[in-house]
Amino acid sequence: MGKKHHQDITVNMGRLRTDIERFAEIGRGEDGGIYRMGFSAADFEARNALRTTLKDAGLHAELDGAGNVLGRIEASTNSPSLMVGSHLDSVPAAGRLDGALGVLCGLECLRRIHEEAIDTLRPIELVAFSDEEGRFGGMFGSRAMAGELNPDILETTVDLSGVSLAEAMTERGLEPLKALAARRSPESVFAYIELHIEQGPLLDRLGKSLAVVGAITGLSKWSIKLKGEADHAGTTPMSMRKDAFAGLAEFAGEVPRVLEEHGGEGSVATIGRVTLHPGTANTVPGIADFTLDVRDESAVTLAALTDAFRLTLSAIARRRGLMFEFDILSEVAPVQCDTRIVEVIVDVAKDFDIDPHVMPSGAAHDAQVMARLAPTGMIFVPSVGGRSHSPAEWTHWEDIEMGANVLLQTVLRLAQTERCEES
Amino acid sequence: MGKKHHQDITVNMGRLRTDIERFAEIGRGEDGGIYRMGFSAADFEARNALRTTLKDAGLHAELDGAGNVLGRIEASTNSPSLMVGSHLDSVPAAGRLDGALGVLCGLECLRRIHEEAIDTLRPIELVAFSDEEGRFGGMFGSRAMAGELNPDILETTVDLSGVSLAEAMTERGLEPLKALAARRSPESVFAYIELHIEQGPLLDRLGKSLAVVGAITGLSKWSIKLKGEADHAGTTPMSMRKDAFAGLAEFAGEVPRVLEEHGGEGSVATIGRVTLHPGTANTVPGIADFTLDVRDESAVTLAALTDAFRLTLSAIARRRGLMFEFDILSEVAPVQCDTRIVEVIVDVAKDFDIDPHVMPSGAAHDAQVMARLAPTGMIFVPSVGGRSHSPAEWTHWEDIEMGANVLLQTVLRLAQTERCEES
Repeated sequence: MGKKHHQDITVNMGRLRTDIERFAEIGRGEDGGIYRMGFSAADFEARNALRTTLKDAGLHAELDGAGNVLGRIEASTNSPSLMVGSHLDSVPAAGRLDGALGVLCGLECLRRIHEEAIDTLRPIELVAFSDEEGRFGGMFGSRAMAGELNPDILETTVDLSGVSLAEAMTERGLEPLKALAARRSPESVFAYIELHIEQGPLLDRLGKSLAVVGAITGLSKWSIKLKGEADHAGTTPMSMRKDAFAGLAEFAGEVPRVLEEHGGEGSVATIGRVTLHPGTANTVPGIADFTLDVRDESAVTLAALTDAFRLTLSAIARRRGLMFEFDILSEVAPVQCDTRIVEVIVDVAKDFDIDPHVMPSGAAHDAQVMARLAPTGMIFVPSVGGRSHSPAEWTHWEDIEMGANVLLQTVLRLAQTERCEES
Repeated sequence: MGKKHHQDITVNMGRLRTDIERFAEIGRGEDGGIYRMGFSAADFEARNALRTTLKDAGLHAELDGAGNVLGRIEASTNSPSLMVGSHLDSVPAAGRLDGALGVLCGLECLRRIHEEAIDTLRPIELVAFSDEEGRFGGMFGSRAMAGELNPDILETTVDLSGVSLAEAMTERGLEPLKALAARRSPESVFAYIELHIEQGPLLDRLGKSLAVVGAITGLSKWSIKLKGEADHAGTTPMSMRKDAFAGLAEFAGEVPRVLEEHGGEGSVATIGRVTLHPGTANTVPGIADFTLDVRDESAVTLAALTDAFRLTLSAIARRRGLMFEFDILSEVAPVQCDTRIVEVIVDVAKDFDIDPHVMPSGAAHDAQVMARLAPTGMIFVPSVGGRSHSPAEWTHWEDIEMGANVLLQTVLRLAQTERCEES
């Protein structure tokens, strides 16, 4: 078979759809949800199915020491690789697309490029990262690739049910310490591209079929305790109460103001968990224990927001005679996607008559870790109703097809194909 | 021994103090708290100790079919009895005084009257009610006396750990259905008087040693569910959220306004229990499940408050696109104490140079049930720091002594003693 002008090439949608449906059966539970938690039997059933599919397509396939599946198309030069991928593991009771869609669209890109025997200047690699969702902390495979693991992590990490990472890896035939060898040098990776579902409602509400991610938002997550006095709900006059929940409610009421005064367009803040003590109907709450999750794509804005929230809380506590203390649960710095890659994706999308929305990703992704290793870009396709981490997670087939084609053309451009004649 | 002018008579404080200390040892746990839950072995150890103490003092003592201990001084006429008392059971990890203080002060009144051989026109009865605190629903003994039990209650009531009332009664040697025979006719009770600790901070803060209860507040307790949409805390813009907790926080912020606009001086409202679903830091709460406990001494005010809270919640839900539903957990009508009895207690207190505070009781008491059977009055003594239902519960000995003496003189006046000469 000869060489083709790459602009004629599109994904084989029938095959991609069959892949998506086939992988959706792996680890499917009785409730319709998918259970492919990191290093579970179902997770590795999917990894093995991917390796088989790569080999059946005549592509090189391997499993690295961290459990990442890697596929590869060699290039005419031994230059750094363009990597494309996402993850194959899932949260419990997951939908069909979170992670798997990016892997399978990447697979389809490699297959089409291979089938059409297109020469690229750079090798193209497919990667299916392990434990992105966090059974053992999350972004495990990409952290391994970026060289962010160490023996202590590998030997001491334990999941919520007490199974150690080392046991789980051993059960899948992996030697835990070999995960350190999954590290890739920055010189070996030209760029990383990930297609993912948005996992939010924006594209669906805007009626857009695609977005280019400009940045992955940073996050500051706190556990906060407001302490007042637990008193009898019948015998304690309102004026004599130190009601910890009333303090929390006032703070929650200030969230929109703080976001307006100190936040950016995409800033979000969420109080997602609240526990009151003693927590009975006839007692004024003595303690309100809650989480505050603040996100923004700018590190400066994120810092301004966390400062403002702390001041607000402190003033409320002082005025109400409450004590407050807080622990930082996690702090993740925002990551900017590579502006040149963003431009390439926008250009490609315009060739498909799409004016893509450029937006931040509010969810965390492997791309966030890979950005520390190489220039990174992300493509979002819409989530119907914004639903994710649920069997209701879905993206219309037309939007999947468009996303896959934009991904394919982006991969081809970044891999610097030669213009070539049909045979 | 001859007869005395009753105004010379005071309680024997040494003896009362010994009784309080002795009963505080019955059911004492390792944490210092008292565990005399209704129909427990410790509860009946206390009941038997009371019967023995009554008999040792030469007084009639019996246990009725509901587990109430009754002591009695006969009178010169067979007129309706003046009853004085409270309860001997406790919550888990209770303090020394809740219930027991009223029973032991009542005991001391009967002993002094008997010792001084004072003739009264009415019989005087001491009552130590069973299960006031609610192992089996609460106010069990007083409800039995007021004729508010039925065979279904006796046969089907079960405590939180699955033990049935019938089993618990049988274990204490009682025949469950005989609790129906504990009923007293309204004609047999002239009035009921109860001394109790305030269980709130008001008297302690005001520096008052005594209060007369004007009314026992009614209560409206709801379980409310606000339903929005559970969304990803990172990917859902603030403007697209239906955050159930934000709705609850706004409602909580309106509580002071509703109380100011529709409540009385002593109105209180409490949000004591909050459960969010899914309740994780990185998810916008889809459901906020909470309790609202509203109390006031006026039935009209209580109704106005519950209407206003419902309207407020409905408007917040509508504006925020939330659904709301509520269940009534309990509704208890306010009870007015008998104005003549309030006047008698105020007069007695003034004889002791006290200007007693007249206040509502925010907590529920057996007096609330007894008021449906007979004219009822209550005396409050201060709770140090407002503490109750805790081993920290305390009332200064001087205040206990004053309360006991005011109770004794009130009992004597209501029992219509004859002025008599010392022999």
